[in-house]
Amino acid sequence: MVILRLEIGDVLRSHRQRQGQTLRQVAAKASVALGYLSEVERGQKEVSSEILASVAEALSVPLSLVMREVSDRVAALEGIYIDDTYIPDTVPDAFVTEVSLYS
Amino acid sequence: MVILRLEIGDVLRSHRQRQGQTLRQVAAKASVALGYLSEVERGQKEVSSEILASVAEALSVPLSLVMREVSDRVAALEGIYIDDTYIPDTVPDAFVTEVSLYS
Repeated sequence: MVILRLEIGDVLRSHRQRQGQTLRQVAAKASVALGYLSEVERGQKEVSSEILASVAEALSVPLSLVMREVSDRVAALEGIYIDDTYIPDTVPDAFVTEVSLYS
Repeated sequence: MVILRLEIGDVLRSHRQRQGQTLRQVAAKASVALGYLSEVERGQKEVSSEILASVAEALSVPLSLVMREVSDRVAALEGIYIDDTYIPDTVPDAFVTEVSLYS
């Protein structure tokens, strides 16, 4: 089963890190507790709609883009599960490294 | 501010209604309380990641598609807000009706 809050957390963290912002900075801008934001990023807490909107705004990322990226990640995960059975990735690691240079 | 749970609720309800399923049928398949699912559809309750996955599965809709549709709705809403101010829709109703014939 794909767990949405893990994907939301990853997307939020990747935007924050790409911008070189600390958890503390984003938490302050979004008016949320630092510990709470940290738990959200790690997928340990469900995020409310209001807080998600605040965090996206603090990152200057449209909420629609956050959700689009979440959708893409979920789609990739769904592609490797069939009837809840994990289908192992058989692409050689060397190839994956090569391809990710372009992403 | 765009409230995500309202969009999630609308997307779930629209899939259910298009399939001609009742709240009771989907709630039973997803093993969630009828009243809870009803509140989720109306955007009155945040849905947990686990329950969202169950409901999507009960509807036979990939979670990624649900999130993609949510993202599209949020994008449309973001387009009509600038700095939290609602920009009224000035497209004539007749035109909207005409265009939606193709959607």
